[in-house]
Amino acid sequence: MRPSGRSADEMRAISIETNYIKHAEGSVLISFGDTKVICTASVEDRLPPWMRGKGEGWVTGEYSMLPRATHTRGQREAAKGKQSGRTQEIQRLIGRSLRSVVDMKKLGEHQITLDCDVIQADGGTRTASISGAWVAMRLAVDGLLAKGAIKEDPIKGHIAAISCGIYNGTPVLDLDYIEDSSADADANFILLEGGQIAEVQATAEGATYDEEALLRLMRLARIGCDQIITAQKSALSK
Amino acid sequence: MRPSGRSADEMRAISIETNYIKHAEGSVLISFGDTKVICTASVEDRLPPWMRGKGEGWVTGEYSMLPRATHTRGQREAAKGKQSGRTQEIQRLIGRSLRSVVDMKKLGEHQITLDCDVIQADGGTRTASISGAWVAMRLAVDGLLAKGAIKEDPIKGHIAAISCGIYNGTPVLDLDYIEDSSADADANFILLEGGQIAEVQATAEGATYDEEALLRLMRLARIGCDQIITAQKSALSK
Amino acid sequence: MRPSGRSADEMRAISIETNYIKHAEGSVLISFGDTKVICTASVEDRLPPWMRGKGEGWVTGEYSMLPRATHTRGQREAAKGKQSGRTQEIQRLIGRSLRSVVDMKKLGEHQITLDCDVIQADGGTRTASISGAWVAMRLAVDGLLAKGAIKEDPIKGHIAAISCGIYNGTPVLDLDYIEDSSADADANFILLEGGQIAEVQATAEGATYDEEALLRLMRLARIGCDQIITAQKSALSK
Amino acid sequence: MRPSGRSADEMRAISIETNYIKHAEGSVLISFGDTKVICTASVEDRLPPWMRGKGEGWVTGEYSMLPRATHTRGQREAAKGKQSGRTQEIQRLIGRSLRSVVDMKKLGEHQITLDCDVIQADGGTRTASISGAWVAMRLAVDGLLAKGAIKEDPIKGHIAAISCGIYNGTPVLDLDYIEDSSADADANFILLEGGQIAEVQATAEGATYDEEALLRLMRLARIGCDQIITAQKSALSK
Amino acid sequence: MRPSGRSADEMRAISIETNYIKHAEGSVLISFGDTKVICTASVEDRLPPWMRGKGEGWVTGEYSMLPRATHTRGQREAAKGKQSGRTQEIQRLIGRSLRSVVDMKKLGEHQITLDCDVIQADGGTRTASISGAWVAMRLAVDGLLAKGAIKEDPIKGHIAAISCGIYNGTPVLDLDYIEDSSADADANFILLEGGQIAEVQATAEGATYDEEALLRLMRLARIGCDQIITAQKSALSK
Amino acid sequence: MRPSGRSADEMRAISIETNYIKHAEGSVLISFGDTKVICTASVEDRLPPWMRGKGEGWVTGEYSMLPRATHTRGQREAAKGKQSGRTQEIQRLIGRSLRSVVDMKKLGEHQITLDCDVIQADGGTRTASISGAWVAMRLAVDGLLAKGAIKEDPIKGHIAAISCGIYNGTPVLDLDYIEDSSADADANFILLEGGQIAEVQATAEGATYDEEALLRLMRLARIGCDQIITAQKSALSK
Repeated sequence: MRPSGRSADEMRAISIETNYIKHAEGSVLISFGDTKVICTASVEDRLPPWMRGKGEGWVTGEYSMLPRATHTRGQREAAKGKQSGRTQEIQRLIGRSLRSVVDMKKLGEHQITLDCDVIQADGGTRTASISGAWVAMRLAVDGLLAKGAIKEDPIKGHIAAISCGIYNGTPVLDLDYIEDSSADADANFILLEGGQIAEVQATAEGATYDEEALLRLMRLARIGCDQIITAQKSALSK
Repeated sequence: MRPSGRSADEMRAISIETNYIKHAEGSVLISFGDTKVICTASVEDRLPPWMRGKGEGWVTGEYSMLPRATHTRGQREAAKGKQSGRTQEIQRLIGRSLRSVVDMKKLGEHQITLDCDVIQADGGTRTASISGAWVAMRLAVDGLLAKGAIKEDPIKGHIAAISCGIYNGTPVLDLDYIEDSSADADANFILLEGGQIAEVQATAEGATYDEEALLRLMRLARIGCDQIITAQKSALSK
Repeated sequence: MRPSGRSADEMRAISIETNYIKHAEGSVLISFGDTKVICTASVEDRLPPWMRGKGEGWVTGEYSMLPRATHTRGQREAAKGKQSGRTQEIQRLIGRSLRSVVDMKKLGEHQITLDCDVIQADGGTRTASISGAWVAMRLAVDGLLAKGAIKEDPIKGHIAAISCGIYNGTPVLDLDYIEDSSADADANFILLEGGQIAEVQATAEGATYDEEALLRLMRLARIGCDQIITAQKSALSK
Repeated sequence: MRPSGRSADEMRAISIETNYIKHAEGSVLISFGDTKVICTASVEDRLPPWMRGKGEGWVTGEYSMLPRATHTRGQREAAKGKQSGRTQEIQRLIGRSLRSVVDMKKLGEHQITLDCDVIQADGGTRTASISGAWVAMRLAVDGLLAKGAIKEDPIKGHIAAISCGIYNGTPVLDLDYIEDSSADADANFILLEGGQIAEVQATAEGATYDEEALLRLMRLARIGCDQIITAQKSALSK
Repeated sequence: MRPSGRSADEMRAISIETNYIKHAEGSVLISFGDTKVICTASVEDRLPPWMRGKGEGWVTGEYSMLPRATHTRGQREAAKGKQSGRTQEIQRLIGRSLRSVVDMKKLGEHQITLDCDVIQADGGTRTASISGAWVAMRLAVDGLLAKGAIKEDPIKGHIAAISCGIYNGTPVLDLDYIEDSSADADANFILLEGGQIAEVQATAEGATYDEEALLRLMRLARIGCDQIITAQKSALSK
Repeated sequence: MRPSGRSADEMRAISIETNYIKHAEGSVLISFGDTKVICTASVEDRLPPWMRGKGEGWVTGEYSMLPRATHTRGQREAAKGKQSGRTQEIQRLIGRSLRSVVDMKKLGEHQITLDCDVIQADGGTRTASISGAWVAMRLAVDGLLAKGAIKEDPIKGHIAAISCGIYNGTPVLDLDYIEDSSADADANFILLEGGQIAEVQATAEGATYDEEALLRLMRLARIGCDQIITAQKSALSK
């Protein structure tokens, strides 16, 4: 039995509130149960130096947690003077995932920065960030298309991310914090609409796992990502 | 005429949503028009080294803005590896202001950290932070009293903060971003219920000012702080 | 009674030694009693990037204390790898104050950096810094005028700064370290010749204060700033 | 055809030279073709603060590249003043992987730090690091057992790591730098002797991939890890 | 001919003003011509962790230049966030030199920090620092002896430092900035009263040099150090 | 008697393996007994900003130790976020020494960076670094000459470095770690073929020394440098 009473293949409630931050070109507040992340997409004409003059754009991600997003207060990274390895790892994953569905030629010389700031954490913050960032990016790109700054839609399709894990010996979908803390294995899947894979990261925590387990986790992830993509579409259609 | 159409002594709409972040001992989302700040109060038993063993507590503040809280995206301080002078100045002001209404003996060996994170900025973020942090602190202290961790209420009274300024030659209350950007002088007042002053910071921007102007700004600030204290009480009574 | 035996409206002895550092375009050693600050004005043609090409100049301030300027040795900020919040707050105040009396158009594309280095501290280091920096700036600008690098004098007038506070219930002028450590309120006033205000910062330390007290502190500040401006003129006329 | 002329399931030559650094409790120079990494295992009695007093040990990893390990010189991280996100990600992976085969209770209050320093890079540096670090750790633990510092062997079994990828449409084993630079997908597998999985990280670079491709990469990885474990055993038996 | 008109073995005027900073246990303002350094000796009971509990003391040095001590303004190291290699090299030299004349057993568990802050630079700042720091240390130790904090004098004798160099082919004593900038070789000698050597650092700048040249520079250094020690004695006897 | 059984003027075995790192324009693994350093020379067309457009080149050095090069593991400087004073002092020495034998005009607008990474330390790492870096630089410059990137050989001659010291009262050549730890004085000599001096650094550690001792150390250094230069020539002739 899961602490939340959910069945093994049951997601938490997803909500996506678009245009949450008025200054950003695209923004959402995305929630997976008690996990809440503000995702903004900022469009700038200034590219990183190594990207300039190629007629192509760039997409990058940043991630942070408010100090009291978690059960106990964490020290502010700006106060410590550096970002943790965990933060950097997640930032790199967000950028890489979103870039996998963007045609940089069609984006032209624009940079889109996806800022994912967790205001309340209950497991799955990196996957919620990616799923929400896609909507923020979609809104920002719609703006560029609407004002004629780009001609063709550079976004190739939806992308969604979800965590699964082996909890008390059973593969389960969409780990919350309690499950995540004691899972034997914990896997993040980043999937495209239609089932192609952008990234899999599956890590043994308490016990190593076998190929069969990996495949069962992937099956759960497909269920979850389908529901996330439905929620993305629904949020955009409002 | 003010860009927002407000009269000279008219505040923006204030809203204070309590218990906004579930993990924090006290929290609010406070809005002054389009300025929105999440304030959390975290209670810890661990004091800074120089405060230990005195039987007294400590109250401190931290402040940050999400990168896209503003019109153009700002670089993340955690990525730059240091907090700006502006951030540190505001943090010091938040801590000093809140400490001015707390009896540290009665608080006992507890530290309360007030994290003020601006999610959307439209002028007056530091004063909204202080006004909201007081409510978050009140909620956290109520929790300490309720569970018997402290015996007597250490909070001596309300504190509220507001910015005023001279805009187009006229003293006005509660500057928004457009006004703030072109004000001749800009003053932050931190006042107690009943009118005592905790801090005044009044700075000439475009033009220096005289004593008469300072007094007129203070009069506006009293109007604003009364309304903020009313909003604090109303939020807590829900 | 004040520890120094001074009357409530009595300043410490002021001395200003001009051209103290031979390499600087302008420099002084300013003393307020035992508080001693070396202020240099450095003129450079290189402006900060965001100021270039506007035909205007810029004035900025930096501040530091020698490690043993104080009663107990403080750790060197260069060794700690960052400037404290207090240092940054003071630097920003110095720059802002001095800019309030400079016409940036008339200064042309020159940057003046005012370095204020406290070699011995006994209270009031930031106000001594501002009062001394003005003289250093005046000397540097005289040099620019003399060699024809600028045509019109960009300095609009004198500026002086002084701290006042409520000590043992009495408003007093020009706090020394002993008074400052136990004052109930402590206020810094930055005033122009003739009485206009550039900045007021008045902070409750032990007890909050009322409007009447603020006005009495301002009256003391006017007495002090008049004397400082007299000392500035006298130093320059030598 | 692979640039090196290797067949799809062909590894580069592996060599493992034990006791390469005389001061370390365990050390190797491991080579996968032109990729060369010095791995040392350092045993210390001092645990990180949060691990002390539990009667358990800890295993952690660090990673770096010499500035000229690569085709063009990279700036030294010590000179930049921080470790890149890539470095931190790899360090975390090394520590996590090695911990998955150690019983911390049996290790007792010892910390083993695995330093992996790449002296020449040609693809696969993180997987070579893990494969080499295991041997260095084995040597260090043998030393602890030999001198009676621990009673039971805390190492549960071999661990090996290899990268595979989809190069020109074909899944291939043990990517070298040229292949890695243009692979469509690139996956790191960390496997135990017998086939259990410690970690899978499979990332789309040029094109997303499907489940079938992931399984084919895993099959190649099993071939590679078997050969690495054979090489580990052979190096230790000398 | 030297730019200053001095003969090859002629020092600049030396002045040493004792008790220059009232808070420090020992202090001087030392000048070699236009080079001026404030040296303070601070006595603390807190030793660095690795020195504690041995019944011995420690002597260490720190060094900095005010930003405008030099012809053109240098960026403040505290603002850059790190000390330059040059600064660290000089600090290490100051500490090492002063330690060479102190008996750490006799000093007992006291740490003396010698802060050398250059307020005006014209060549030879590191040697002036060492020569002045010795006097500051002497004053601080006299204080410890006077109040009975230590029983026996831990200072074994005078130490003095001077730079010499080969300027236009001729060995000269006490280089000023103009000479230093174009010297072929530049050597710092740190000598004890009586002629023993604590340190020699002789560096080819424009041209390498031979043993004969080194010996001639040392002969000049002996002349200089004798005069410095005479000045140290004279300053202390006032 | 020396711990190693060597006679006073006896060097440790020197070995120099050229082309040790395949990507670098020049490289060696140099050993002095158990001290082993990888030296690479990297040629870049990008000069530091202050060197550009003069038609001249630049030579610079960097230095590091692997964490477990030493008896006990040292913390990685990249993890600490800064290079130690010792590291910076050695880097500056390497660059300065190598520059003393290069004609920057003939080098043209090329920068050569000499990276010296100690993989195993047993005393004399800085002198081994300089002696090895010269060979790496020679190889890199030979490459530039071979491909016609420069016309004339900018290298003026060999340079070699060695440490000597006073151990148990006797001047000895090429200190190993045990000797270095307890030497009374320790001197590094950087000499050209033919005997000219590039740099001498002679430091009293336990006891000060006299001119006679300095000269005897220099005599030993000449013996050592002759042998090093012979080894350099032999390595290059292979």
